Amino acid sequence: MNADVIVIGGGLSGLNAARLIHRAGKKVLVLEARDRVGGRTLSKKFGNSVIDLGAQWVGPTQDRILRLAEEQGLRTFPQHTGGRQILALGDKVSTYTGTIPSLPVHSLIELHLRITKIEKECRRVPLEAPWTFPDAEKWDAMTVESWKQNHVYTRGARASLDAAVHAIFACEPSEISFLYFMHYLHSGGGLMRLADVKNGAQQDRIFGGTQQISSRMAADLGRRVILSSPVLRVEQTSRGVTVYTRKTKYSARRIIIALSPTLCSKIAFSPALPVARDQLHHRMPMGSVIKTFALYDRPFWRERGYSGEVVSDGTCVRLAFDASIPGSMHGLLVGFISGENAREWSDRTPREREAAVVSDFVRFFGEEASDHRGYLEQNWIAEEFSRGCYAGLMPPSVMTSFGNALRDPCGLIHWAGTETARHWNGYMEGALEAGERAAAEVLEAR
Amino acid sequence: MNADVIVIGGGLSGLNAARLIHRAGKKVLVLEARDRVGGRTLSKKFGNSVIDLGAQWVGPTQDRILRLAEEQGLRTFPQHTGGRQILALGDKVSTYTGTIPSLPVHSLIELHLRITKIEKECRRVPLEAPWTFPDAEKWDAMTVESWKQNHVYTRGARASLDAAVHAIFACEPSEISFLYFMHYLHSGGGLMRLADVKNGAQQDRIFGGTQQISSRMAADLGRRVILSSPVLRVEQTSRGVTVYTRKTKYSARRIIIALSPTLCSKIAFSPALPVARDQLHHRMPMGSVIKTFALYDRPFWRERGYSGEVVSDGTCVRLAFDASIPGSMHGLLVGFISGENAREWSDRTPREREAAVVSDFVRFFGEEASDHRGYLEQNWIAEEFSRGCYAGLMPPSVMTSFGNALRDPCGLIHWAGTETARHWNGYMEGALEAGERAAAEVLEAR
Repeated sequence: MNADVIVIGGGLSGLNAARLIHRAGKKVLVLEARDRVGGRTLSKKFGNSVIDLGAQWVGPTQDRILRLAEEQGLRTFPQHTGGRQILALGDKVSTYTGTIPSLPVHSLIELHLRITKIEKECRRVPLEAPWTFPDAEKWDAMTVESWKQNHVYTRGARASLDAAVHAIFACEPSEISFLYFMHYLHSGGGLMRLADVKNGAQQDRIFGGTQQISSRMAADLGRRVILSSPVLRVEQTSRGVTVYTRKTKYSARRIIIALSPTLCSKIAFSPALPVARDQLHHRMPMGSVIKTFALYDRPFWRERGYSGEVVSDGTCVRLAFDASIPGSMHGLLVGFISGENAREWSDRTPREREAAVVSDFVRFFGEEASDHRGYLEQNWIAEEFSRGCYAGLMPPSVMTSFGNALRDPCGLIHWAGTETARHWNGYMEGALEAGERAAAEVLEAR
Repeated sequence: MNADVIVIGGGLSGLNAARLIHRAGKKVLVLEARDRVGGRTLSKKFGNSVIDLGAQWVGPTQDRILRLAEEQGLRTFPQHTGGRQILALGDKVSTYTGTIPSLPVHSLIELHLRITKIEKECRRVPLEAPWTFPDAEKWDAMTVESWKQNHVYTRGARASLDAAVHAIFACEPSEISFLYFMHYLHSGGGLMRLADVKNGAQQDRIFGGTQQISSRMAADLGRRVILSSPVLRVEQTSRGVTVYTRKTKYSARRIIIALSPTLCSKIAFSPALPVARDQLHHRMPMGSVIKTFALYDRPFWRERGYSGEVVSDGTCVRLAFDASIPGSMHGLLVGFISGENAREWSDRTPREREAAVVSDFVRFFGEEASDHRGYLEQNWIAEEFSRGCYAGLMPPSVMTSFGNALRDPCGLIHWAGTETARHWNGYMEGALEAGERAAAEVLEAR
């Protein structure tokens, strides 16, 4: 035996599991496919700042990630918010303040009613076992788009729902089940909690980037973290589990797989996994997002009274924020190309994407935006060891038919990854919760 | 170079492609993961008959498969139909003749109207590029279940639609997109063509089993077919393609991958596939079906005036047919456990499934059905090299966003498999069509 427990996946979830198992005095190994830890977090130097090409924000009620970052000596700073937001629907660019966009009165009234209803109804979905909810089958039989067609009528309220789905899930409303959508909202504390900056999931950022949280956990684990080791095969017997990479094999009493279901589908299991778990791997595609950054001499949009926040229904950037770092004179804008837009722009060259993103920024903030000093992007769909971001999504019928396979251990194999979280599913917080839960399962098992 | 063309997958599609490439004077190799050819066809001796544990029927307009079987000297016989059909809804078991079940008059009227509408509307979906259809986005945004909730009102008509989805797709109406559903119907020639025995997709069977069609193609190809060789990795350069199995590597100028998208997702591609193709692999789960057979001393149900055909909304068998072989005295019943039922029964033992299937047959045909002489089953979900049957399914939003990746070659990689077929998509006929098209692509390429 090389270890008591092997953890597959050196993202936040796997590293948190490994850290807790190590702390409990057990021998642990982490196998990571990439030449770096951090999974869907990735922090890079850009200009004189470190920016987050992956997960970027933390917010209230995300207790685990906030505590861990603090223990590690990391500091947070608030997402910039001062100024007017921009709403770009069709050819029309308008501005507003607060969370609720500038829409015609009847759209605003409907939007208010729908949000109130969603906030109330999503809390009815049980976090632990959403498939037991009385309306589960009904809600899981339809897409969010179908729900919208049947329950939302004004153009403004429909566009706002589309924007929320793009911002929160990086997909189209036709890609996900309404039950999954409502469960996800409840999991993070409601729609406004997920959508908001102040008092919401986009409230704060971490100086030096979120990847540091993983790097520091990995540093503490030292040689127990083995990089550049994609796992090809997992063999389970009654006595233990053997894990095969291209060159080596490792064995342990139990293993934790801290990968999205899509990535789990790349591993060959022997004996075969139970049918429900295997099919789950083929039924949770990842969201689609290209994250882009443009660097400017200064955050000129602030001078013009803009916060930098944009919601758009255009063909390239669907969502933008001021991404500047306090203490730096430079201005940074982050633009998210998500859902169908991300798939379409994936086939183009980085230079074509740069031109399109900057052209969107000009449309939002004026001609000055064309004078950018640099461009950086991360296409998460094209990453072999992510295959998309932010998280694994559930199309209709998956949660009711396969949801119970998400966390159920398969013999000596336990499952982590943010897709298995009860709270803040899909977020960094959820990744830590999932790692904690899987570590507890392993430590309690005899 | 080991060959001009390597075909991955020794099912009907891959073997047909290989046969045509070989006939054109090119050097071809077929790599098959299993120790047998035939993919989702599998013929086995049971009692004194050979039965089909996989694809079982052929019908009119399936010109390629009928011609090929005839060239190979295989003979067909008609699916047994004489007698009354059984409809088992809830606790109620009733009988009827013809295709239209015994339902209350208002259900029958609605069913007739809906079928007429579906037959007409499905023909509007273009077979080649369904995503170009004006209503494509609207239809692809909803599940068949959502369409049913909005357009079908009587219990009888709803149950009939559910039964059709189970019979044709082996899934629940909440698992598939309405656009995909309508395209699939059009692809096979309409709902009644797919659902019917006489003049439909269940009209005829093949003496000795459908797997023979593959075996005979493979026999003609001789040592060009290499069994027990699952492909792990595909590397493409400008000059050719190298294919890695666990022990060997093979190289060719071009390759054809004749696997379902789900199985394609198990192969590592270098360089990475275009985003749309890669994501497609994660977005087309397979249908869920366990095919079961019970053997009797004689087809006793015929004596009682039953045809053997059953449609049920029960928790185990959803569809049954007389599967007896002319010339044999024995009686055979085939029962399909499909969709959610298949997932649930997958976790049980074969003995438990046998008891449940036979108990269903008793409910349908009377006490005599309990006296079976043998039971045989094939759980296609649990098959490592199928991961489900009958075919890869499209949840909402997949056809419009990823459909154009189904057949588009990726450099020197061409795609076959019945999921890529224009006609009879999902059927043996579609597998042959797809192989023929991929072979033509390769032969026309320089």
